[in-house]
Amino acid sequence: MNDNRLILFLFGATGDLATRKLYPAIYRLYKKKQLADHFAVICTARREWTDEHLHEVILKSIAKEIEDHIDANEFVSHFYYQAHDVHNADQYYKLNDLAKQLDQEYQTQDNRVFFISLLPSLFPEITKHMKEQGLLANQGYSRLIIEKPFGHDLASAEELQKQLNRSFEEDQIYRIDHYLGKEIVHSLHYLRFNNYVLRRLWNAKGINHVQIALDEEVGVEKRADYYESSGVIRDMIQNHLLQILALAAMKEPEDDSSDALRQAKIEVLSHLKPYANLEELKKNVIRGQYGPNPQLNLPGYRQEAGVDPQSNTETFLAAKVFLDLPQWQNVPFFIRSGKRLQRKVSVINIVFNKEENEAQANRLRIEIGPNLNYQLFINSKKPGYDHQTESIAFKFEYTAEEVAAMPVDYERLIYECILGELNNFNHYQEIVQAWKFVDHIIAGWQSLPAPDFPNYPAGMAEPQAAIDLLQGYAHQWYG
Amino acid sequence: MNDNRLILFLFGATGDLATRKLYPAIYRLYKKKQLADHFAVICTARREWTDEHLHEVILKSIAKEIEDHIDANEFVSHFYYQAHDVHNADQYYKLNDLAKQLDQEYQTQDNRVFFISLLPSLFPEITKHMKEQGLLANQGYSRLIIEKPFGHDLASAEELQKQLNRSFEEDQIYRIDHYLGKEIVHSLHYLRFNNYVLRRLWNAKGINHVQIALDEEVGVEKRADYYESSGVIRDMIQNHLLQILALAAMKEPEDDSSDALRQAKIEVLSHLKPYANLEELKKNVIRGQYGPNPQLNLPGYRQEAGVDPQSNTETFLAAKVFLDLPQWQNVPFFIRSGKRLQRKVSVINIVFNKEENEAQANRLRIEIGPNLNYQLFINSKKPGYDHQTESIAFKFEYTAEEVAAMPVDYERLIYECILGELNNFNHYQEIVQAWKFVDHIIAGWQSLPAPDFPNYPAGMAEPQAAIDLLQGYAHQWYG
Repeated sequence: MNDNRLILFLFGATGDLATRKLYPAIYRLYKKKQLADHFAVICTARREWTDEHLHEVILKSIAKEIEDHIDANEFVSHFYYQAHDVHNADQYYKLNDLAKQLDQEYQTQDNRVFFISLLPSLFPEITKHMKEQGLLANQGYSRLIIEKPFGHDLASAEELQKQLNRSFEEDQIYRIDHYLGKEIVHSLHYLRFNNYVLRRLWNAKGINHVQIALDEEVGVEKRADYYESSGVIRDMIQNHLLQILALAAMKEPEDDSSDALRQAKIEVLSHLKPYANLEELKKNVIRGQYGPNPQLNLPGYRQEAGVDPQSNTETFLAAKVFLDLPQWQNVPFFIRSGKRLQRKVSVINIVFNKEENEAQANRLRIEIGPNLNYQLFINSKKPGYDHQTESIAFKFEYTAEEVAAMPVDYERLIYECILGELNNFNHYQEIVQAWKFVDHIIAGWQSLPAPDFPNYPAGMAEPQAAIDLLQGYAHQWYG
Repeated sequence: MNDNRLILFLFGATGDLATRKLYPAIYRLYKKKQLADHFAVICTARREWTDEHLHEVILKSIAKEIEDHIDANEFVSHFYYQAHDVHNADQYYKLNDLAKQLDQEYQTQDNRVFFISLLPSLFPEITKHMKEQGLLANQGYSRLIIEKPFGHDLASAEELQKQLNRSFEEDQIYRIDHYLGKEIVHSLHYLRFNNYVLRRLWNAKGINHVQIALDEEVGVEKRADYYESSGVIRDMIQNHLLQILALAAMKEPEDDSSDALRQAKIEVLSHLKPYANLEELKKNVIRGQYGPNPQLNLPGYRQEAGVDPQSNTETFLAAKVFLDLPQWQNVPFFIRSGKRLQRKVSVINIVFNKEENEAQANRLRIEIGPNLNYQLFINSKKPGYDHQTESIAFKFEYTAEEVAAMPVDYERLIYECILGELNNFNHYQEIVQAWKFVDHIIAGWQSLPAPDFPNYPAGMAEPQAAIDLLQGYAHQWYG
């Protein structure tokens, strides 16, 4: 039991993220007694809801998580609703009045966490009012949790940061990349740096190449509006994929602090090697867009609701990335992500060097999701009389029960924010460096002829060019 | 299908090994069509049996292996019985007459394999008669399969070899160590030398120490007569254990030949570092003998039928062994074997070096039996909020079905003898070097005071001194 004391402000409390993810996450913390008596949640949105209605919504959203011995009604009694117009300065005073009253009632020691689950374009105005209308804590801590995207490119990220910094210091800003809340992702550095055998092998001498794939099975769904101006490069590559790459490539952090960990990632992200020219860019960054697949009865991207029928937005990207770091000379990191691929899987493959007599390269496959497992592929003599080898996998997989007991991503991240642990939140410099790399690719694309889209059928194989990209290293993407 | 042609002579055909192991092994080869039309087996022993009786015995012995679609009667029709007194020269002529007749009948191309499953003291006389009475093949090959023990010490092994060499060249002698017929043992060098990751780690730089344990749950059973003059050092250490040590420590063989493989093992066995003096011997070689355990209702060794009530025969041995080879400087190999231990398990543990921050040393556990599996122990972050690590195992295990389909030890070894493959048979020099090491231990014991037996209770823990032996390397024997 860890009876944390705080008021959590939830901006966008009637939204999709709140009902799908945040209420269940907070309830899981409550079940585990990480939140008990001394917390309150102020839920705000434009709509006029009553506390009673809010409570009904929350009860419904946590239904699957409810356990008999936990009093769900007691839990929802910690939640207070207040309709709020983010543009109206006066209403921040009213929020503060409620907060002060709840601080007394719940003895929260004036600690305040602000979770903004609204359009990023609103962040500057909201945080400005927080400061100017005195919503920030006086004695306790104030922490801001915001969702990606952090800017649309480097310039807008810089502008956003400038605005936020008027109200919050860097170490008060908790930028969520929910992949860092996933068990296997956030524990990757434990694996790398607490095992002699991996430490010996996980370097340019031992590794031939790395593959990181975040494949989605779904199409654009109802997000066409956002996706059209984003594409997979902003939606997945700039954040999740480069974060995983950074964790896979970073040096051992100098100590256990958040600062050391994030500095180690920044070092990697600031050494992503730009492509020297358009020719190199074209050769090393493969774009794709899914087309219709009548056999599977799937529409193409251009046929999806809300998508421009001539859209050149990429729904797939594969890239061969080098790091401009001495310790990773000549080791390519192949990264990819896309929609409407054959199956949903998030996976890192560390492909080790291979000597001539070996049938297959040794490979450590790390599945982040949907299953959570590690597999080390080893050449072994095929049982029987013949002198043949076969590939076998030394495997560890978390059971369904173990996975169910793990903190889910938002649960972990909210909890770590409450503890003041920044490990699994992006530092501003991580965002900056990732945008620099992504911006230079997007800029290059603008000078290249329009891509020949669509170039892969929905629900089937990736574009052939993405496989050709691996040439000299592998014959396939290891799913 | 591989229709091998030969006559197999089985000396000791009415014995335990024949009925328990050899008939089923030959039947498995027949089922897999490694033996088909062109083979015959001449079974001999002192007793007067008819072919019919032999066939009944064989049918009973293979009952568990019989499959409907295979004609078991056709199989046993290849077996011929002839009563034989090994001391009577004339009877070898009669065997040869039968062999010549069967060679015609089965078109075996005059290939002859002689499997002697009798007391080793009889080997010289039998092989002498084979040559002198013309039982060896004229046009085809002659190969001799013999069981351990090969001698009782170096001197007797040398004498035996001299006798055998009057009839057989070294490359005609197939000395069985049935552990080399086990799937995981005989494929260990494939594992070691066909995997980059293991090649990088499996050396003095990567390995802290090695543990090899061949633990038995049974007591001396009905073998007191043999065991009293043998002890675990001759029964298990001189052969199985040192063979596994050799496979674990040897350099990569220069080529795929039997000769290269056996030379690599000989190099290891000839560099087992003798103990410098009695003090060192006493410190590094721990003897044990099991005592009675009333709780488990188990007698002590001295209470077993046929055992001297004052017997000082060791039923357990644990030793810390170094190799006098530059590539294994300062890496101890801890070996042990014993009867009446807690459970039956044959296992190799490669314990890798550990850096300060690691909770547990990485360890590759190779279970030879009763289950067949590999486990690589890795430190991983414990799922949850805390920053703790736990040990997890990347595991590969052959399924029960896969194990059932594998060649059993005698099946593999008889088959390899038929193919003329000596890989998994001991070269004379392996025997010589193993005896040298074992003899010097036994000689040392004779100069030391009698051990304080019994020193471990039947069916429970090993002697404490065997655990103390690991000091500085491990806190336990990894079972």
